[in-house]
Amino acid sequence: MSFAKLAEWGEDRRPTVIKVGGTIIGGEHPPVIIAGPCSIEDRDSALALAAALKEAGAQLFRGGVFKPRTSPYSFQGLKEAGLPILAEIRELTGLPVVSEVLAPEQVRIAYDYIDIFQIGSRNMQNFPLLQAVGRLDKPVLLKRGFAATIDEWLLAAEYILAEGNSQVILCERGIRTFEPSTRNTLDISAVPLVKLRSHLPIIVDPSHACGRAELVPPLAKAAIAVRSDGIMVEVHEEPEQALSDGAQSITLKEFRQLVGALRQIEMRRV
Amino acid sequence: MSFAKLAEWGEDRRPTVIKVGGTIIGGEHPPVIIAGPCSIEDRDSALALAAALKEAGAQLFRGGVFKPRTSPYSFQGLKEAGLPILAEIRELTGLPVVSEVLAPEQVRIAYDYIDIFQIGSRNMQNFPLLQAVGRLDKPVLLKRGFAATIDEWLLAAEYILAEGNSQVILCERGIRTFEPSTRNTLDISAVPLVKLRSHLPIIVDPSHACGRAELVPPLAKAAIAVRSDGIMVEVHEEPEQALSDGAQSITLKEFRQLVGALRQIEMRRV
Amino acid sequence: MSFAKLAEWGEDRRPTVIKVGGTIIGGEHPPVIIAGPCSIEDRDSALALAAALKEAGAQLFRGGVFKPRTSPYSFQGLKEAGLPILAEIRELTGLPVVSEVLAPEQVRIAYDYIDIFQIGSRNMQNFPLLQAVGRLDKPVLLKRGFAATIDEWLLAAEYILAEGNSQVILCERGIRTFEPSTRNTLDISAVPLVKLRSHLPIIVDPSHACGRAELVPPLAKAAIAVRSDGIMVEVHEEPEQALSDGAQSITLKEFRQLVGALRQIEMRRV
Amino acid sequence: MSFAKLAEWGEDRRPTVIKVGGTIIGGEHPPVIIAGPCSIEDRDSALALAAALKEAGAQLFRGGVFKPRTSPYSFQGLKEAGLPILAEIRELTGLPVVSEVLAPEQVRIAYDYIDIFQIGSRNMQNFPLLQAVGRLDKPVLLKRGFAATIDEWLLAAEYILAEGNSQVILCERGIRTFEPSTRNTLDISAVPLVKLRSHLPIIVDPSHACGRAELVPPLAKAAIAVRSDGIMVEVHEEPEQALSDGAQSITLKEFRQLVGALRQIEMRRV
Repeated sequence: MSFAKLAEWGEDRRPTVIKVGGTIIGGEHPPVIIAGPCSIEDRDSALALAAALKEAGAQLFRGGVFKPRTSPYSFQGLKEAGLPILAEIRELTGLPVVSEVLAPEQVRIAYDYIDIFQIGSRNMQNFPLLQAVGRLDKPVLLKRGFAATIDEWLLAAEYILAEGNSQVILCERGIRTFEPSTRNTLDISAVPLVKLRSHLPIIVDPSHACGRAELVPPLAKAAIAVRSDGIMVEVHEEPEQALSDGAQSITLKEFRQLVGALRQIEMRRV
Repeated sequence: MSFAKLAEWGEDRRPTVIKVGGTIIGGEHPPVIIAGPCSIEDRDSALALAAALKEAGAQLFRGGVFKPRTSPYSFQGLKEAGLPILAEIRELTGLPVVSEVLAPEQVRIAYDYIDIFQIGSRNMQNFPLLQAVGRLDKPVLLKRGFAATIDEWLLAAEYILAEGNSQVILCERGIRTFEPSTRNTLDISAVPLVKLRSHLPIIVDPSHACGRAELVPPLAKAAIAVRSDGIMVEVHEEPEQALSDGAQSITLKEFRQLVGALRQIEMRRV
Repeated sequence: MSFAKLAEWGEDRRPTVIKVGGTIIGGEHPPVIIAGPCSIEDRDSALALAAALKEAGAQLFRGGVFKPRTSPYSFQGLKEAGLPILAEIRELTGLPVVSEVLAPEQVRIAYDYIDIFQIGSRNMQNFPLLQAVGRLDKPVLLKRGFAATIDEWLLAAEYILAEGNSQVILCERGIRTFEPSTRNTLDISAVPLVKLRSHLPIIVDPSHACGRAELVPPLAKAAIAVRSDGIMVEVHEEPEQALSDGAQSITLKEFRQLVGALRQIEMRRV
Repeated sequence: MSFAKLAEWGEDRRPTVIKVGGTIIGGEHPPVIIAGPCSIEDRDSALALAAALKEAGAQLFRGGVFKPRTSPYSFQGLKEAGLPILAEIRELTGLPVVSEVLAPEQVRIAYDYIDIFQIGSRNMQNFPLLQAVGRLDKPVLLKRGFAATIDEWLLAAEYILAEGNSQVILCERGIRTFEPSTRNTLDISAVPLVKLRSHLPIIVDPSHACGRAELVPPLAKAAIAVRSDGIMVEVHEEPEQALSDGAQSITLKEFRQLVGALRQIEMRRV
């Protein structure tokens, strides 16, 4: 009963497939690659990076403008001022744009600028926000809460589905454990588990999972090996200069190598 | 720098004291007792319970009308319809009312009806909501996120303080661990730790911490022993009939015994 | 079936009471205070400390000679050479001695020198060691594994009971969580939970739970408030000079104050 | 200093390579496949299974005879009586044998029968046991404690190395978290992290990590994708009849498919 909408899908076991721009996510389609900086910092560098990422093989662009930060004194993103930059990136590169919203009001403001609305880990159980994106006709990328069980995560998806929006993409991004050497612990088992229990596409964000650039490539490969429907990675031209999340951002050069490697694994996946 | 507002207080080490109605929370004042049902279910039972709780020694009344529930199909509270009941309880019993809000819009709607605005565990890092209550001239009860570190919790308080509202009460309510026999694990150390690092009052919610009525009295006693500034407990006339959180609600009779016991510990606390 | 021995006791609900020297642990007896240094470092300082602790109100002396250390290059205790010092302390002060053993062979070597055999947190599921102390006619202090559920802990006790030794004292000493500001998180709920499920005495070790001297007194008070059958604390004359666990050791002066405070709480406990 | 032996290796960055029978583990060698039942239950079924596993591609055989069980009343393995069966398996199939020991005494008894001595998760910090296998001239498979940090795990390896045995293979087998749908959470990041910090080979045990047969194949693939030096899986002819760990054992048929799939990923790994 709790999983009413997820259960409906269960009847014919047909996976949910989500189309955004020319890209398809889910089902038997090859895994998608979403890339971009943690935050949009300024127009020119964001555009240059987006063009380079497209060239390197990214199919969607991610970039934060409303940034949830642990401290009120950290850079909070460009906010509304960043939205036109997202639109420009979409227009110039053709890449659909994934960006996070933190409040129902931001959903309204950002509607025309964002192609996939990201609900971040801290807001996985922000129910009014889930209901707001549940009333949209655009896809939602629902990150797992960093201390949410898989049941709670699927029920958060159910909140969106129950409002009528069936375009939900789940995103595993690491859970909080006692291990201090990574920012979080990537729960790689979540991918096959979610596929056993629902027909929603699921992708993996190795950047937030580990918080360390050198671990991003192997974790991305692990994601493809367990049949994740895609990956989302943070890329920055100069990670050490980033206003947020520098330590976990890979460089463009590393991103190009990663795309090549992932394609090889993907072609053989069994 | 991150703890700018908390650090300001640090200079003279004077504890923040919060007055609401005739009750004072914090500093050297005796611990306060906040009690009530998880959710307001209907007017008559809520009023009867509130009167009985006051008689038994409660100084503030808690009762949820906007309820954050893991499943979209669980009882979500009476919402706006519950607010006049809260006002009536306050008028008839004289008890100030503590109730949770989930979104900035609800803060506006509920302003006249609620004396202390509770930010729940799932919303501890809902930054737009923290900012909304940060602009109020009423106290805020900030529950610890169930997987938040103490640093993150104090920074969430800092979000409220940074907006100008200095009336913040912290509430330890248990953290998520591997132990399955309690709903969460009460982090009793959080009380002395917070008192070492800030001058904000801190109370304990043993009901959500353990999720089992039989453990509520000993945990409440532990809270008083570590000099918590108060406790908040769920009480229900017939716990097994409750629409939410029945397993962790104590009965009125158990509440009366608990109040007596706490007073004895409190009188001697050293 | 799994809890066969614990269940036997369950029938008449009579608590297990353990006598060692003139001290009684468990049941309705007042909580006992076990104190001493983390490690015995040398004869003279150990004897002086033991005498002072007795004077201050300690009823049992704790001191490690076989020390389990995370690194092979840390001080590993005096080993066999420390055992005669334990015997001398017992003889001169009359305090029974609690000390840890790490292997069945050490149980044999240490038999004459130790009054209560401590099984440390890392060895809670060292089954051959549990069986070895299960064949003794002396009490065993079984610490909870730092990541053991209460069920697993009670089953570890059952291993000892199943060999015929019914003198088991449980010791809650904190569990591993994501919170970094304390060494572990004291699971204060474990005390009432264990008392609901077994008739074994249970004590609390606040020193290892928090790893910070300033938190030891409040946590010890919380332990007494939830009706722990005792506490075990690390005391060192000069904590900053200790060869192990200095940060969590309280001074003799702090110990004296703590004993006074605990007695006041205890006299009123309800 | 703490990692003295691991650091020595660090100088020339040459990976440790371990030879056992005709099989080589570590360095640039292809990942090895270790398979077998949780426990040896009887001679005939163990021999038949071992022959079939060899035929299917296993390079080493695993089978427990000394079984650490949470309850004293669960099947504890065949103990000494199982050792000759291990020897017979080795002789008939040519597969080297991996088996767990729980105490120094068992190390001596089992010396002639076991090719790789496994130290289980519960004994990762059983220091006398680590020292006992540290004095052997045979390889040791050191499982990560289910709540051990990577630092603590490497220091446990250091205990073995410090005694003179440099043939240590690490094994990631899942850590304890709040997630209830898997027995443990496979920390897949541990593989690249350990490879950044040491030159010891590291393998993955997906069976214990997830506790569910249907997740074993995807997790094994993830392990190969992150360049694990091998995997160890539980296989049982009739999992539902197993005396231990049935739920996580895959069938022979599933094992054959898995070996085929892993070889394909491995051939392309980049």
